[in-house]
Amino acid sequence: MEQVKLYDTTLRDGMGGRGMSLSVGEKVSVVRALDALGMQFIEAGFPSSNPKEAELFERLAELKLENATIAAFGMTRRRGVAAAEDEALLSLTGAFAPVVCLVGKSSPLHVEKVIRVSREENLTMIADSIGFCRERGKRPIFDAEHFFDGYREDAEYALDCVRAAAAAGAENVTLCDTNGGSLPSFVAAATAAVVDVLDGAVDVGIHTHNDSECAVANSLAAVEAGARLVQGCVNGYGERCGNANLASILPALQLKMGFEVVSEGQLASLTPTAHYLDELCNLAPDGDRPYVGRNAFAHKAGMHAAGVAADASTFEHLDPALVGNDRDILPSELSGRATIRSQAVQAGLELDDAAAARAVERLKEREHAGFHYEAAPASFELLLRRESGAYQPLFVLESYRVVTERRAGGGVETEATIKVLLDGERYLRVAEGNGPVNALDNALRSAITERYPHLAEIELTNYKVRILDQDHGTGAVTRVILDSTDGDREWGTTGVSENIIEASWQALVDSLEYAFQPHAAKAAL
Amino acid sequence: MEQVKLYDTTLRDGMGGRGMSLSVGEKVSVVRALDALGMQFIEAGFPSSNPKEAELFERLAELKLENATIAAFGMTRRRGVAAAEDEALLSLTGAFAPVVCLVGKSSPLHVEKVIRVSREENLTMIADSIGFCRERGKRPIFDAEHFFDGYREDAEYALDCVRAAAAAGAENVTLCDTNGGSLPSFVAAATAAVVDVLDGAVDVGIHTHNDSECAVANSLAAVEAGARLVQGCVNGYGERCGNANLASILPALQLKMGFEVVSEGQLASLTPTAHYLDELCNLAPDGDRPYVGRNAFAHKAGMHAAGVAADASTFEHLDPALVGNDRDILPSELSGRATIRSQAVQAGLELDDAAAARAVERLKEREHAGFHYEAAPASFELLLRRESGAYQPLFVLESYRVVTERRAGGGVETEATIKVLLDGERYLRVAEGNGPVNALDNALRSAITERYPHLAEIELTNYKVRILDQDHGTGAVTRVILDSTDGDREWGTTGVSENIIEASWQALVDSLEYAFQPHAAKAAL
Repeated sequence: MEQVKLYDTTLRDGMGGRGMSLSVGEKVSVVRALDALGMQFIEAGFPSSNPKEAELFERLAELKLENATIAAFGMTRRRGVAAAEDEALLSLTGAFAPVVCLVGKSSPLHVEKVIRVSREENLTMIADSIGFCRERGKRPIFDAEHFFDGYREDAEYALDCVRAAAAAGAENVTLCDTNGGSLPSFVAAATAAVVDVLDGAVDVGIHTHNDSECAVANSLAAVEAGARLVQGCVNGYGERCGNANLASILPALQLKMGFEVVSEGQLASLTPTAHYLDELCNLAPDGDRPYVGRNAFAHKAGMHAAGVAADASTFEHLDPALVGNDRDILPSELSGRATIRSQAVQAGLELDDAAAARAVERLKEREHAGFHYEAAPASFELLLRRESGAYQPLFVLESYRVVTERRAGGGVETEATIKVLLDGERYLRVAEGNGPVNALDNALRSAITERYPHLAEIELTNYKVRILDQDHGTGAVTRVILDSTDGDREWGTTGVSENIIEASWQALVDSLEYAFQPHAAKAAL
Repeated sequence: MEQVKLYDTTLRDGMGGRGMSLSVGEKVSVVRALDALGMQFIEAGFPSSNPKEAELFERLAELKLENATIAAFGMTRRRGVAAAEDEALLSLTGAFAPVVCLVGKSSPLHVEKVIRVSREENLTMIADSIGFCRERGKRPIFDAEHFFDGYREDAEYALDCVRAAAAAGAENVTLCDTNGGSLPSFVAAATAAVVDVLDGAVDVGIHTHNDSECAVANSLAAVEAGARLVQGCVNGYGERCGNANLASILPALQLKMGFEVVSEGQLASLTPTAHYLDELCNLAPDGDRPYVGRNAFAHKAGMHAAGVAADASTFEHLDPALVGNDRDILPSELSGRATIRSQAVQAGLELDDAAAARAVERLKEREHAGFHYEAAPASFELLLRRESGAYQPLFVLESYRVVTERRAGGGVETEATIKVLLDGERYLRVAEGNGPVNALDNALRSAITERYPHLAEIELTNYKVRILDQDHGTGAVTRVILDSTDGDREWGTTGVSENIIEASWQALVDSLEYAFQPHAAKAAL
């Protein structure tokens, strides 16, 4: 099988994403995770740019990696300066990283308007810089910036830049769609032209951005045209619309296009790795993400779910286990007993026939009342637990009261009091909050965490409310969806009531009760 | 220029997304927004399935649209039942929608495993159903479900299905990548085969899903291969990883591939329309979304920003104004002074230069604080009124207090007290409600309607809450959107605060104050 290599640039190009920021320790964790996933190259950044980067390179130099080679990133030499006197090139070649990736211009527009040198001088800058890195014992990759725009403007000049890099000793020439504006058929044609020109002497790579929502397709098109290295970021991090998402490119290359990229076991670690990287970057995993999102293999009950039960390939493009993901049948009014039972199994619960029938009834009642469990699997699991007998109540409510007051010219003040029984003991607590739900949460938590300190770590991360359509004249019903996390797992809960405070209370109680249950190994989300 | 038509299925396939739920009124707003954007077809749903859908079709039948034709969605007839006796087909052809989209099988696997009929019977089911719709005066589109999987299994049979639909009178045959697993080069080849087989007799369409992160590229590849209709959803709503994102397909077709799709003005409304649809669906707009995301044209300081200053085309794949987006600032259709003034004129207000400048400043401040006026034009009008001098305060607040209490076994009780000045006179009122906002509304209304009885008629019809993303460490901010009606007109207002009660109060006050202002003829929504 032919090989395609992956080159992750999360730690360099990926850091351009809005709000991305990682400590040196977190960056080392990213490197370990990408190495375990089987990435062939991991770009760590510019070794010269600041003390944090210097520390990172020191730590990486000592790190034992199983699969990946570390690459350092830099630019072709400045104009009018010899490569051997260019400080950035000196610190680049002075760093331990065996691979250096040098970005240079390949578009006449950029040569003229941005770096303002002659076309010939740009070719010399490329050749000098690549040659210097080679002399210093490095394996140079040439990143041909704006290659596709350049090829559109002046194909011969863009090819000259690539030829200059190849002739000077580049191990690989990577074609960049820096602005992300190119479409797949053009990328395929331009890549084929480069593969043809280089005639096997040097490997060709592809580096795309998602500004046209085609970064993955552009990468795959380039591979079809002969590229054998793909640069991008797992999860598609990066500025503007992001870099090409390696979490989507890897399974396509290996499972759909027949290339050898990583081992089967590594591929099966894709979903947890992608989620772990999101966690390191402090980003909420996007549920709709291909292959690795929690919705990626979710099926609504009904025809699709029935089809999946008959033969999964009818409604799934691949087996989710191959990429470490799970099938998820969404609870809905149409759910039958079989679906309920398979949901219970996923949650580590056992439901006998009678219990499953009760759960179906209960689900119907609750959905009729306005509950909606698709975004609240933890509340759904609690419903199943109540029917399976595996439910442990956290506390018994005697009463709560929330007061919100505002005076003209003054701020808004909110105070909640609660009275609850915990293991038979009565707790009265009062707390303030920046809103009524926060105040209730504070009051309830101040009682509960005395007995169960681990529940203090739970953070509420998202809160959504909507009024459900009702016939005019009857009271409107409020539905609340609450997302929580304990740092490891995330879970969604819900509450429904005429009263928004009561609906929020239900979702809040479900969130804490869910965290309180003795869980099977599998997390809810 | 050759035309490509867009077919938005947000209201049918898009509703499969996790947590998607829209009221009939919101669906009508979606239709208006898509029509204004220039969509050629808008799929409204299954006309038969339930009373909500029936109400939607009744309301759509009366709606005057500028550009779009409404399509109703259904399936080919059941096995063993004549088309004219199939209830679903009867209600489909009985609905007003001139276009009907019939989904049918085109993959042997599905014919055998899911609907369990012979291959010949499936062809007859397709032909009968399309023929019946044609007889009843409808314009049928055949959605060939799982076409690409079918083509992979048995190309001749998949083509037979398409031929059967064409021969029976389909206006268009749309090829569906239902599981979203196909890659662009295969989609291009299979589409070309269909275009070749149908030989211009019937138009070809494409319908893709994003499970391989290639839905946009697959759609564009099909168009390159001869398809002239693209089905999808603006913003890529839909189950699993979503449908093809028309917000990315539209600008690619029109600006990069040279097709005529919508007018320039319509294309320039793409970003605000995409954001408005997210608001209706109560979803946070994804900042990294191509073309319409707030990060899509964001440039980090340094070389890129300098390049953009020298010549924007160096670091931008297209001019953001073409799609209604902005470079590096939060997108807002309201931001310029000229726009502000034209908005004022629409509301029957006059703003001089100084007032317009103040309004722009105020708007920026408020948007920075989390206000968002796209779904709250009445609050925006009040902002303009305050600057134009045409604002009449309804009352002065001294204080409010809301108490919500619950006792075990008892119901939830809510009580609000308010103290306000109306024309200098002090009113103290207390009221109960089924929730805190309702109680506040009742208390305030009991004072106000003594003086202004017509404000008693106002009904609150919708209420949405979202927590806004904030930088880590700062408190979360709650945004409320409230829709109201007086029976004739509907208007939207908004409030933003850390405290949900205060945010709701602001939206409530805006709603009543808006109704209290002496209005020009034009309604706000």
